[in-house]
Amino acid sequence: MLIKPGKLLATIHSPADLRKLSQEQLLAVCQELRQFIIDNVSIYGGHFGASLGVVELTVALHYIFNTPYDQLVWDVGHQAYGHKILTGRRDNFHTNRKYGGLSGFPKRKESEYDTFGVGHSSTSISAALGMAVASQYKNELDRQHIAVIGDGALTAGMAFEALNHAGVTNANLLVILNDNCMSIDPNVGALKEYLTDITTSRTYNKLRDDIWNILGKISKFGPNAQAIASKVESGIKATLLKQSNLFESLKFRYFGPIDGHDINHLVSVLHDLKDIPGPKLLHCLTVKGKGFALAEKDQTKWHAPGTFDKITGEIYKVHHDTPQPPKYQDVFGHTMVELAQQNSKIMGVTPAMPSGCSLNIMMAAMPDRAFDVGIAEQHAVTFSAGLATQGLIPFCNIYSTFMQRAYDQVIHDVALQNLNVVFCLDRAGFAGADGPTHHGCYDIAYMRCIPNMVVSSPMNESELRNLMFTASQPDMGPFSIRYPRGEGVMPEWRTPLKKIAVGTGRVIQEGEELAILTIGPVGNYAVEVCLNLQKENVKIGHFDMRFAKPLDEKLLHQIFQKYDKIVTVEDGCLQGGFGSAVLEFMADHNYHAQVKRLGIPDAIIEHGSQLELHRECGFDSTGIERTARNLLFQAVSVA
Amino acid sequence: MLIKPGKLLATIHSPADLRKLSQEQLLAVCQELRQFIIDNVSIYGGHFGASLGVVELTVALHYIFNTPYDQLVWDVGHQAYGHKILTGRRDNFHTNRKYGGLSGFPKRKESEYDTFGVGHSSTSISAALGMAVASQYKNELDRQHIAVIGDGALTAGMAFEALNHAGVTNANLLVILNDNCMSIDPNVGALKEYLTDITTSRTYNKLRDDIWNILGKISKFGPNAQAIASKVESGIKATLLKQSNLFESLKFRYFGPIDGHDINHLVSVLHDLKDIPGPKLLHCLTVKGKGFALAEKDQTKWHAPGTFDKITGEIYKVHHDTPQPPKYQDVFGHTMVELAQQNSKIMGVTPAMPSGCSLNIMMAAMPDRAFDVGIAEQHAVTFSAGLATQGLIPFCNIYSTFMQRAYDQVIHDVALQNLNVVFCLDRAGFAGADGPTHHGCYDIAYMRCIPNMVVSSPMNESELRNLMFTASQPDMGPFSIRYPRGEGVMPEWRTPLKKIAVGTGRVIQEGEELAILTIGPVGNYAVEVCLNLQKENVKIGHFDMRFAKPLDEKLLHQIFQKYDKIVTVEDGCLQGGFGSAVLEFMADHNYHAQVKRLGIPDAIIEHGSQLELHRECGFDSTGIERTARNLLFQAVSVA
Repeated sequence: MLIKPGKLLATIHSPADLRKLSQEQLLAVCQELRQFIIDNVSIYGGHFGASLGVVELTVALHYIFNTPYDQLVWDVGHQAYGHKILTGRRDNFHTNRKYGGLSGFPKRKESEYDTFGVGHSSTSISAALGMAVASQYKNELDRQHIAVIGDGALTAGMAFEALNHAGVTNANLLVILNDNCMSIDPNVGALKEYLTDITTSRTYNKLRDDIWNILGKISKFGPNAQAIASKVESGIKATLLKQSNLFESLKFRYFGPIDGHDINHLVSVLHDLKDIPGPKLLHCLTVKGKGFALAEKDQTKWHAPGTFDKITGEIYKVHHDTPQPPKYQDVFGHTMVELAQQNSKIMGVTPAMPSGCSLNIMMAAMPDRAFDVGIAEQHAVTFSAGLATQGLIPFCNIYSTFMQRAYDQVIHDVALQNLNVVFCLDRAGFAGADGPTHHGCYDIAYMRCIPNMVVSSPMNESELRNLMFTASQPDMGPFSIRYPRGEGVMPEWRTPLKKIAVGTGRVIQEGEELAILTIGPVGNYAVEVCLNLQKENVKIGHFDMRFAKPLDEKLLHQIFQKYDKIVTVEDGCLQGGFGSAVLEFMADHNYHAQVKRLGIPDAIIEHGSQLELHRECGFDSTGIERTARNLLFQAVSVA
Repeated sequence: MLIKPGKLLATIHSPADLRKLSQEQLLAVCQELRQFIIDNVSIYGGHFGASLGVVELTVALHYIFNTPYDQLVWDVGHQAYGHKILTGRRDNFHTNRKYGGLSGFPKRKESEYDTFGVGHSSTSISAALGMAVASQYKNELDRQHIAVIGDGALTAGMAFEALNHAGVTNANLLVILNDNCMSIDPNVGALKEYLTDITTSRTYNKLRDDIWNILGKISKFGPNAQAIASKVESGIKATLLKQSNLFESLKFRYFGPIDGHDINHLVSVLHDLKDIPGPKLLHCLTVKGKGFALAEKDQTKWHAPGTFDKITGEIYKVHHDTPQPPKYQDVFGHTMVELAQQNSKIMGVTPAMPSGCSLNIMMAAMPDRAFDVGIAEQHAVTFSAGLATQGLIPFCNIYSTFMQRAYDQVIHDVALQNLNVVFCLDRAGFAGADGPTHHGCYDIAYMRCIPNMVVSSPMNESELRNLMFTASQPDMGPFSIRYPRGEGVMPEWRTPLKKIAVGTGRVIQEGEELAILTIGPVGNYAVEVCLNLQKENVKIGHFDMRFAKPLDEKLLHQIFQKYDKIVTVEDGCLQGGFGSAVLEFMADHNYHAQVKRLGIPDAIIEHGSQLELHRECGFDSTGIERTARNLLFQAVSVA
């Protein structure tokens, strides 16, 4: 079903059309654009609050700047729905985040208006600065470069690194700080408080009070003292606001804060800023979810609510008559509390994903033992390392894809020192609708090469609990546990906690000729395959290896001595992953089985449901079965 | 030769001994400590300027704080020689950075005074905050936690992430900003300028001028105006300096700047700071190389000068009668200029290592095309990605070990978008004396799993030039070139630039039965091995594969069809590395050779010369030959 755009919006096929309108019409454009987003997301799902919060900003930017010649970089990008709708993708927008459809994030392949692919936060200033420096070099001095970044994204170190560099260039760069006090969860940290301070002008107010106080005390100087004070005050206001500003400290010209929902003011300010050279920052105050009352009120819930009734605000849920398996995230969250109640050494750390990874459960139950450190993966890991040096056992929960940002800290601060930090890699494997920027493809490969690191993945909820329990035992060293986004397979998941011997797998079934070796929840596909083949009286082996490192060498010796056809399956990259670990074992011990590795191929896999993507890559149950049958029943050709 | 310490220093076996001295004696301790460092480094080599710069700070910290109960974290750690000498390692100090000797950096295994292992910059605030939060949780409220961080290290994003978190805690954390305006090269960026600003109180001076100007204009208010102005000025000074401070913006209490070489003032300030709770920052001004005139004058040269005459300052160089091979670093630096002269699209980027990687050659020759962006690997990569979106071809030179810090940016900002960024991974393989924090062990594994990424390594200088030339061709996509620290093998290295077909190896020699497959300069060891065996009329094959990705599949088919014994050799980790890539090829094509992989084992390898470490890991020429002989001449047992 195509959503019908409003009358004005229907005429806008590109920003050039927008720029033909009069400024008076922009208010209506904003209303129609906001409605179009609400209409779409309520039916098709997707990110919600962030895009509603920048409707006016989006319209103003494309109205004032000459996109795509002027280059606009959206940080993170889940706020860019309005941008997509205004830049030629309106009539396709219902395919957003669907398999084969539009990406939920700006993407260079999708449009020339998407100057830089995003998804992870805090890249926009670096990228826009690169563009601006390139324009300088190419003598395109009229070209404008704009990065739109949220106050949450600004807490990540790389944004600061970019400001530090940009401030000493004379590149034509405008940073728009979209300050809504939110990440997905409420933003945290000193910077957030600082932004609130300057917004409420506390600094300035404090200084003004001081001046008045001083001048009050010096009233002996005569009746003109108050008048002088007033004059002094207004005279130094400009200097003071400028000099006392963190961004001015970093050599940016600071403007604002202004109301990010006042379209006319935005247009006028952006128009003026066009003519100011060098690095500059415009501080815009916006409200996440603006224009949809419930979303304004509960911003975390409405970050990406799923589908909903746009009138009543009822978020649709599928109802089941029988108990359903929980999300792995909730198993993690509840198990953290359970473990921490038993073991006073356990702490929880998340970089800005408390609701996403469900550490919010522990944060509510034990606020002094669970920390949201902001969008700051690097700090999260080294902070955890610091805790571990004092004998505590931090569980540092970071999405697989975001752990890439703390890779050095995992190696340098945890593994080299063999510290007992537990890394819970959420959303490992395909992330689903968020697409390639968010897929957790690489972690088995990038973790497996690190000395001292345990690399594990549970096949189900009970195994996740047991791995977490195991990782919390004394002197375990660095221990990583990867598990996917979404539901598991066990409605009755609160099983008793059992310690697992590190580096041991599980025999799911013994068989003949061919063995399937799995790691993680893809093992459940293999169970289906075994059942299907058994109907034809073919009994193959299936082993849930559980650990990519250390490998269960005892079990592998048994397997390689018995089976000469092996299929390995993982929801991770084939280069250097679990299957490669099995090949390394085979070569090191001079076995010569025929091994077929299934997993994520060496390519960028786009968005879609997890099952669609598993199927595309040939490791859903159908794909695994096809591979097993090929090995079992077809003549093998030597390449 | 043991260096004789001064009279007082000889009595100090631990900080407890230091704390027995009177404050009047500390000046002499500083003199003796500085002399001891000069005496040692002049004979045994090592980092120099950084430790001289913090002699007073080191003495003051251990004098005032109750180490090791109070926890002291040195950022980077090459300034911690004085700390090592005062904490029980004086008589061992001549083994510093030698194989089997002391580490050049603080290291937990070495001493209880080394609270956190360091080497990479900017980790100290995160680690110390973790310790401080742990102390709070354990109710050790008297315990002090101190991070000493340089102004260079402060430019890295993770330091900012840590400040942002720390500022909203009430943890007992003291950050000492060791401000000497230097990284290894002069520090760059807006933050550095800001620190200079507040040091020279430019902000305050500007405001004062403004006030005087305003009051000058309002002299109609009467003769008392100047007096009022003066009163206003002093009254608001405290507020202003406080509020206008970047660190105060981040909710740190800011103290300073103070002279970091005034031992008495340091002692008194640190003493006072002990009683101030919560996060606080002391800004110390120091001079890198303090007390050794030449080192103060040319700080980059004297960062780690090698051995030298401590009287004349002559840095000792080995003299050769014949031309010697150049450093790979200089081949890189000169070839950059050569390529950039031919191709206007080529740009150079380094995060704070211009002299280390030799990009300084291009920065001098073409200042508008080569950028030092500060200690900011993440920004360096995404800034390069931004340049690449505009059709430029950035060569982003980052040490292999530091590229770990930009791993997400390599994946998310470059590889996913298939941008033409060339990654030059300097110091790949064993770094040598810097040890495990600096070894570049993992890059083949962590790069190989990234889609679109070319992973290459030259066997010699000429190949490095050719790979660089190849990488600068149009539409190459992400292209990584790894090469080691130090000298190559070709005195006559300025060979004509030739384009290499991506994914092709070189046949060094054909042979029988056994083939050695190498990547990178370890191929030169294999040449020796082939020569040795040939003396016994055993002719084996040797192939310089040149690319770990894409593999030369054509060549590999030929090899696997001909040879049934294969040795792979790489100066990189065995888990998921080049050898594993060969195993993956073998499995995918159903070959069944006997493959022995040589490389860096799954363990932390300590410091030593590169050759010592290659030998330890069994892939120097002796080790490779031993492996080849075992495969050729011994009965093979199936495990």
